[in-house]
Formats: sequence, C-alpha cells, structure tokens
Amino acid sequence: MSKQNQLQQYLVENEWDAAFITTPDNVFYFSNFKSDPHERLLGVMVFKNAEPFLICPKMEIPDVVAAGWSYEVIGHEDTENAWDVVAKAVRARNVAFNTLAIEKSHLTVERLEAIQDRFDTLKFTNIDEKVNALRICKDEEELVKLRKAAQLADFAIEVGCDAIAEGKTEMEILNTIESAIKAKGYAMSFNTMVLAGEKTASPHGTPGDRKIQKGDFILFDLGVIYEGYCSDITRTVAFGQPNEEQMKIYNTVRHANEAAIEAVKPGVRAMDLDKISRDIITDAGYGEYFTHRLGHGLGISVHEFPSITGTNEMTLQPGTVFTIEPGIYKSDAAGVRIEDDVVVTNDGVEILTKFTKELVIL
Amino acid sequence: MSKQNQLQQYLVENEWDAAFITTPDNVFYFSNFKSDPHERLLGVMVFKNAEPFLICPKMEIPDVVAAGWSYEVIGHEDTENAWDVVAKAVRARNVAFNTLAIEKSHLTVERLEAIQDRFDTLKFTNIDEKVNALRICKDEEELVKLRKAAQLADFAIEVGCDAIAEGKTEMEILNTIESAIKAKGYAMSFNTMVLAGEKTASPHGTPGDRKIQKGDFILFDLGVIYEGYCSDITRTVAFGQPNEEQMKIYNTVRHANEAAIEAVKPGVRAMDLDKISRDIITDAGYGEYFTHRLGHGLGISVHEFPSITGTNEMTLQPGTVFTIEPGIYKSDAAGVRIEDDVVVTNDGVEILTKFTKELVIL
Repeated sequence: MSKQNQLQQYLVENEWDAAFITTPDNVFYFSNFKSDPHERLLGVMVFKNAEPFLICPKMEIPDVVAAGWSYEVIGHEDTENAWDVVAKAVRARNVAFNTLAIEKSHLTVERLEAIQDRFDTLKFTNIDEKVNALRICKDEEELVKLRKAAQLADFAIEVGCDAIAEGKTEMEILNTIESAIKAKGYAMSFNTMVLAGEKTASPHGTPGDRKIQKGDFILFDLGVIYEGYCSDITRTVAFGQPNEEQMKIYNTVRHANEAAIEAVKPGVRAMDLDKISRDIITDAGYGEYFTHRLGHGLGISVHEFPSITGTNEMTLQPGTVFTIEPGIYKSDAAGVRIEDDVVVTNDGVEILTKFTKELVIL
Repeated sequence: MSKQNQLQQYLVENEWDAAFITTPDNVFYFSNFKSDPHERLLGVMVFKNAEPFLICPKMEIPDVVAAGWSYEVIGHEDTENAWDVVAKAVRARNVAFNTLAIEKSHLTVERLEAIQDRFDTLKFTNIDEKVNALRICKDEEELVKLRKAAQLADFAIEVGCDAIAEGKTEMEILNTIESAIKAKGYAMSFNTMVLAGEKTASPHGTPGDRKIQKGDFILFDLGVIYEGYCSDITRTVAFGQPNEEQMKIYNTVRHANEAAIEAVKPGVRAMDLDKISRDIITDAGYGEYFTHRLGHGLGISVHEFPSITGTNEMTLQPGTVFTIEPGIYKSDAAGVRIEDDVVVTNDGVEILTKFTKELVIL
C-alpha cells in the first residue's frame, strides 16, 4: 500500500474526513516531491472518500509531476490567496469536510485561522502522531537509501582525515570535504562541522580560522543526503599523540557509544539506551560534561522521531533508524563525540556508518 | 533605542503584557543571537513592565552571552518540558500576564496549545505586523552589512564566470564558487544555483551533471551571509555567441530589471514596480513566461517582507531592502533572470549588487 493510501486508511478508521500535510519533509514522504516552499503554501490534502490533491506554487507543477505524483496537482500564483485555492479544491471534491487532521507541530496559528475563516464549523484533530508512526518505521526501499547516505558520510570522514595537516584551518578542511561530496553530485544534510583543539569542547561550535596544531583533537560532524534521505556521523581524530586525559575521554566516549549500540534490539526503550551511555560516562567521572541527549531519529529529516533521551519510554521497533552520539565536552582537556547511525533489525541492530572507531592518530 | 526596547515600547502603547518571539531570525534581530534550534524551543519573551528573558537549549547559554544578550538567559534541558520552564520564568516576573502577543505566522498550533495549557485565561494577539514593520526598515548598521553581503555576491558571480569552460558540469562550477566564498570565511545564504542550457528555463531548477556547451546560457542565483545579513543575486551569462532569440530574451529581461529599479523611490507601491517589469516583458511577447513575482524583501532572512507582487499595494519607504528579479523561462529558447538587491533611499534607490548587466559572453 502506498504511503498516501496508508494515511487514507487511517482516516477511514478514525472517521476523519481529511488530513492536510504541510511539513515539506512529510509532503516528500507522501508525494515524493521535495521542495522548500519558503513562505509559500505547499501541502498534500488526503481525503477519506476522495482522491488527494497537492497544492504548490504554480511554477513547481512540472517538478511535482516529474517526481511521480499521479493525482491532481493545483498551482497557486503569488497574486492569489492560496487558501482560497485550497477551499475551492476541497469544495470541488463534494465530500464531507467536517473534521480535518492537521500537523499541529507544523501548522502555524496564522494558517489555522486561514482555514477556520473558510470553514467555520470545521473541527480540527492532530495527525502528527500517525505521521510520525508511519515515518519512524523505514521500509526496505528507505533503508537502501539510508545505507547509501551513510556510506557517503563514511567517505566524507575519510576525506576529512586525509585533508588534515598542520597549519590548515577548520574551514579549509571543511571545504575539502564538501567539495568532494559535491563533486560526486550529492549535498550535505546540514552544515558540516570541523572543530579543532579547544573548539571541540563546544557541542554546537562554528568552524572558522582555527589552525590545526600538534596535540589537537579534530571533531567532524557531518551528513550527506542520498535520494532525499540523510546520514549524520561524528568522528573525533587526533593530530599527533594525545595526552593521557585525551585518551581517557576518547575511550570513555567510545565505550559509551559501543555499549549503547550493543543494547539496541526490538523492544528496548529509548531511555535505556541513553542511560547505558550516560552511566558509563558518569562512572568515568565525566557525567557533567555529557550535556545533550544520546541521539535522534534520522531519515528524510536529519532530526526526526524518536528522540533518544533519558525520559523517552518509547520501545523501539524494527525499521527505526536513529543516531547514537555520546560526547564529553571538557573545555580544559578535550571535546569528543562519536556518532553512528543505526537501525533496529528483527533481532538486533545494523550499524549504517562504518568508519572506524579506533582512535585515528594522524 | 535598542530593537528590544522598541518592541517593549510598542507593548506599552498597546497595553499588551508581553510578546513571545520564536522565529529564529527574529530572535537574532532582537538579541543578536543566531541559532537554528531545530525542534527545540528558542524564544525571547519581552514584557511591558519587566525585563525580558531569552530561553534556549541549555548548552547554548554561553553562545547567547557571547552574542551580547545582557538580560536573563534561561536554559532548558532535553529531559524537561521547555514550556514549564517558560511558565515558571513568566510567573517569577510577578507582572500582569493577561495578553500575549505571538508570532502567528511562526508559532505552531502545538505550541499555542502548550501555552494555553499553562495560562488558561490568556488572550492572544498577533505581533507579526509590528515585527515586520521594524525589520522592514533597515538602519545604517544593517545597511553596512547588506552592502558587504552584496559585494561578496558580486565576487561569487565573478568566480563563477571565471570557472566556466566547455565540458565542465554545473556542479563543478557551483563547487568552485562555494569554495571561494568559504575560503573567505563566509557561508552562502541559500543553496547556490548554477544552471546551463535548457535547464535555465526552470526557475527553481537543481544543479547537476549538465555539461557546459557552446551556445549555452548559464544562470547563477546565489547569495552570501555577512554578519547575519543576506544577499541574493542572479546573473545569466552566455558561453559562445547567443542566437537572436536568446539576445532578445536577455535584453528584454535586462530592460525589465532596469526600468523597475529606476522607478524605486519613497512612496512607490510594490505592485507598481511589478507592473513596470511585467509590462515590458508582456509587450515583448513573453508575458506568459514570467511566472513569478518581481521580488522579495531581504535582510536577516533571504526571503522577508515586503513581497513585490502585482497585488501588493504597500508603499515602500526609505530603508526597505528588496530584490528586483524579472525572468523569462522559455523552454525551447532560453531562461534568463537578472536579480539585484536594492534599498529605497530618501530620494531614490541605491543598488547594492554591482556586477555588470551587460551580457557577459565567454
């Protein structure tokens, strides 16, 4: 059953008349059409008892068709009110339209009011949970893409390692990595991070003019998009022999990463994975320096459901793809993060990112 | 008066108790702290009768302080509910909190409900218009940054022209441009577009493996961020002598671009500028191939207010920065777009992007 049909089936089960999908990544999930509409309206309206339509800026119609969307596609021009266009298309379906499921985590108050203005007795319900439940479970076709994306991320780390040399800046190395990926015809899934020395101790640092010196740790955090699906990897490598505390921090993070991965199997709770990593880091005396969650879901979006935190009781099921990325950020010593992309399999775990976790010393 | 004080002043005038700013670009505008919080909460709460606070993921607190935010900054961890943290901070202010101005164009229904759950008699009003009105009028400090961003965009086009050679792909040229900008330590303001030949006829095309051939038009659409402010330029150049229809299309677009720019002055309506360009293109017989609005506002965001469309009656005032970017996309002949960034001055217009509009033939 197509993803759009699964959503329609859900509307039938719940006796909801329609669902309006507006998150660009969800529009891609249901239509295979990927676009950043900026402030313009892009959405897929799925009906319980009628064929769906996709609404987009008029100039994107050919791209929607090229992406394989085989139902109606309606264009709106900058000079018309897109919500009037939606209302007209809905009324043309001539089916019940009393309950509309919306993405409450994405639809803005302004857009809600625009719909209310045109359908004043319409009742709203939330489709987020169902869309998340569909997206969280990757099918084989999606896994193929995620594996390719992870391979490209491994390659990018390799390029980064090869580019390291004394006196080079973070930005120069970053640039070499992104050039290599672009030369292959792919885009990064987010702004690449290359941090050196004391800058590794900032989990969200910005690459700049910091030059590589002997004794630096260098942290890469990057990802690549393959046919709409993202990877996200972090590796920390050493330039010159690390000192004792750097080694201890590295080995602690590696242990935390590997122990959590080993625990992945159907039915494990997200919070349990977080606890396994966190306990190892805490026992080593670095608990206060692991300042973020263990990981996050990964797929069409680089951050998606589930969130792997110490409070998420959700049990993980086969097909769920997420990151495991413990870190220690101690500003007077070193920052280390090691991040892999994993998928829950029927009997355990498959690790998508394969770049070595032995400390690479350059 | 600081931008935050201007907002507070507005709350006083309207007798609204507070405003909650959550659009990342608006948070930057009011706090100088730029961050993409993904799904996490980032916001600035400004009060009529109390000091503001900024709420952000806990690990970003040092960056907020480094950005110069001198009021309270409150961190939230992934394991706590950020809205409980907001509610606690509001109550700690011990001031009236009966009316809250929100950004209806950004706040999601989910977030609205999270606030309603904690303040059940709270009334909501919309702050979008005021924030837009503040942001639309750039002060001299902002104009300095926008001029620098435009200079960098000119430089990027130059790099792109220098990189053109027979047999090179769009992606190779794109890569050379982005490398040159990154080497200077700057980031692009959006995904760079380099399109060749028949691909120029898609206003939102994707660069790929298309190789440069004699007789191609090559279209660059790109921008650079300078200290948080964006530029956005488009130039179309020729590789080899263009044919007669290509020349006619180029000259028509250039004329449409220049005539609209010439008409920019305080008090002109956005729609009048669109009409000037559109009439020229229509008179030349290409009206149906100019499929988008004339332009858009530019600043912290690469698309912001005002929208320069055929229906926007807004009169433009000094300090307003926007793009003028007419285009003709005729798939059997050529696609041409010429885009400049301009600012309304006290007596006319200043053009920020300065790369030549003579047809460059390489």
